[in-house]
Amino acid sequence: MNWEKLARELSLKTPTKIVLLVLDGLGDLPHQGQTPLEEARTPNLDELARQSVCGVTDPVLMGVTPGSGPAHLSLFGYDPTRYLLGRGILEALGVGVEVGRDDLVARGNFATLRDGRIVDRRAGRIPTEENRRLCARLNEALKGRTNPRITLYPGKEHRFVVKFSGPGLCDALSDADPQKENKPITYTQPLVPEAEESARLVNQFIDEVTELLRDEAQANTILLRGFARHPTIPTMEELYQLKPAAIAHYPMYKGLARLVGMDILEVGPETADIFRVLEENYEAYDFFYLHFKKTDSAGEDGNREAKIRAIEELDPFLPRILKLKPEVLVVTSDHSTPCALKSHSWHPNPFLLHAATARVDDVQCFTELSCQAGHLGRFPALYAMSLMLAHAGKLKKFGA
Amino acid sequence: MNWEKLARELSLKTPTKIVLLVLDGLGDLPHQGQTPLEEARTPNLDELARQSVCGVTDPVLMGVTPGSGPAHLSLFGYDPTRYLLGRGILEALGVGVEVGRDDLVARGNFATLRDGRIVDRRAGRIPTEENRRLCARLNEALKGRTNPRITLYPGKEHRFVVKFSGPGLCDALSDADPQKENKPITYTQPLVPEAEESARLVNQFIDEVTELLRDEAQANTILLRGFARHPTIPTMEELYQLKPAAIAHYPMYKGLARLVGMDILEVGPETADIFRVLEENYEAYDFFYLHFKKTDSAGEDGNREAKIRAIEELDPFLPRILKLKPEVLVVTSDHSTPCALKSHSWHPNPFLLHAATARVDDVQCFTELSCQAGHLGRFPALYAMSLMLAHAGKLKKFGA
Repeated sequence: MNWEKLARELSLKTPTKIVLLVLDGLGDLPHQGQTPLEEARTPNLDELARQSVCGVTDPVLMGVTPGSGPAHLSLFGYDPTRYLLGRGILEALGVGVEVGRDDLVARGNFATLRDGRIVDRRAGRIPTEENRRLCARLNEALKGRTNPRITLYPGKEHRFVVKFSGPGLCDALSDADPQKENKPITYTQPLVPEAEESARLVNQFIDEVTELLRDEAQANTILLRGFARHPTIPTMEELYQLKPAAIAHYPMYKGLARLVGMDILEVGPETADIFRVLEENYEAYDFFYLHFKKTDSAGEDGNREAKIRAIEELDPFLPRILKLKPEVLVVTSDHSTPCALKSHSWHPNPFLLHAATARVDDVQCFTELSCQAGHLGRFPALYAMSLMLAHAGKLKKFGA
Repeated sequence: MNWEKLARELSLKTPTKIVLLVLDGLGDLPHQGQTPLEEARTPNLDELARQSVCGVTDPVLMGVTPGSGPAHLSLFGYDPTRYLLGRGILEALGVGVEVGRDDLVARGNFATLRDGRIVDRRAGRIPTEENRRLCARLNEALKGRTNPRITLYPGKEHRFVVKFSGPGLCDALSDADPQKENKPITYTQPLVPEAEESARLVNQFIDEVTELLRDEAQANTILLRGFARHPTIPTMEELYQLKPAAIAHYPMYKGLARLVGMDILEVGPETADIFRVLEENYEAYDFFYLHFKKTDSAGEDGNREAKIRAIEELDPFLPRILKLKPEVLVVTSDHSTPCALKSHSWHPNPFLLHAATARVDDVQCFTELSCQAGHLGRFPALYAMSLMLAHAGKLKKFGA
């Protein structure tokens, strides 16, 4: 059963609208009997659950903890085991780099070279400020360069992303990283014959940077790894005939949305801004992906109180979505981030779908366990998209 | 996980019997709190649910609305995305044409040709009576013809089915239909080299019919589309070692049953006739597919009262099946047909399986939502067949 093939065949362009609200990392584990979602006061989410059909989703497979990439691809209807996103791509998206179809990106470290040996693979974890200065200095030195154009983007501490832009670049390249200290500079190797020219360009860049930084005390060379090109992935318009837009605060989620062809709407830093931008752009699109990050951040910090506060901060905004009367509203999560684990987990996500065509079930509140008893049962997140399209009248009948 | 491969390997011939009762289009949406199935008085179905294991099924994939073809194939254990039934085949089955392994069928329209242009693609929607006269006239004119033999079968208004019978026919043919009016006759084109001879025969037939009908005022030519041969599909005997029979009132369902190798039992027009024929033929087969159409027809008409009446009409017949003591009785549906949508939908189907080997659950009545809470949960309809075979002792252990 190939959903992507069916999607191409059955999707219909219609004026109906879908809103997908993702509360990142929402699911959790009980602490003294209750999860943060159970403990939080959520009158709007609970009322919505009573008027919706509910279930819980597995992002990839039962027991498999997804990164943000696979978890979101799945929610957008893309098989995450088919569309693999390289670490370099995700790192690039995470620092806000726009990766085009002709670009090659890699993750980088500034490092310390002494007497021909890498003595510190992180250049003493230089401050982020220092990183910014170094990237600006290198970008200035490289600015006349074309074919490929080369740009560095500073991350935190010693980490950066580099983007090579030009035709014919290949990402079948080994890491240019000795992995251990006290080894000489390691150059990238082409993993296939077509990557030979790209390897030469990358290695020439490493030598050039090392020459440019020779007067720096700590950060006087670089390591590169995770070479990746833009993945070959059909857009949501190609698959579903949708005109989609993303409203998200963090670069990673904007980047993921851009990968599948969404327009990225500018949004201010407050939670209220997400809903204001939705209202302002409601006529221009037929699919909206809204991303709320605070639930995940609190989970990653192991801060249960902050997670409860984040959920309660979000809850009052639901009526603003309903007021727009989208044909379909889904509230769910990409993955769980239990406070006790301080990391993503494999536990399934609560899911509710509100639509006039929904077979509303008996679920009385929006929590991990109560949603499980809903009419959608437990299902792969991959089918969130077919359900949204169906309830919005955007899928034709299959066969006669 | 390939069920078909497992089925061939594990199926056993045994004297046990299976009855599959399909209430077409049964599932619905709540109206003022209740679905028709919830509102209907169904003491026998509810008692049976209490003694059964229950669940709900997705015919194809969550969110995907199936036509009757894919929905039934799934219930018979055939992956409906693998075995695709052309529109021509289904139309042919629908008007009761027996399609054999050497036959090529197509859907046809009578149309109006004037001054070399098709001016009406439906010949003014001629009455069905007129259609019958034209088909009889053409069949009379064509009756001496062999290789291929050609037969027309009238449908409603301007629609008919044509069957070409002879060896070596190929269905890789484009539609012989200009799609728009005021265009000349469009001939079929072979889509692969092996279809060239078939295209020549079909186009010669179009010219011949146009010549034969030249004195008709409105219906003086034909359009043909959806060319299809009998699909290559293993029989239920090949896959499951069953000797299956179908009891159905409508040609479409008899046709689908014939496609998978069932014998079609003659049946009178009343609901009671279905059960009488089951009783009379009970010894001769080990698998019975019983099809009840009225629930779907009421849904398609948007007639909620009629749907409730249909369910209540069926309910009293259940004890007659139980009296035969089949090892397995399944009551379910092929797809939902909600009255509010007046069409097939993607909503899952209630499912109950009654057998001495069933792990009976706590489900107290046979409704869409209560079945969801059953021990079978929500599952693909494709596994209805493995469950029926298993509970009837017809599947060996897999592996040692």
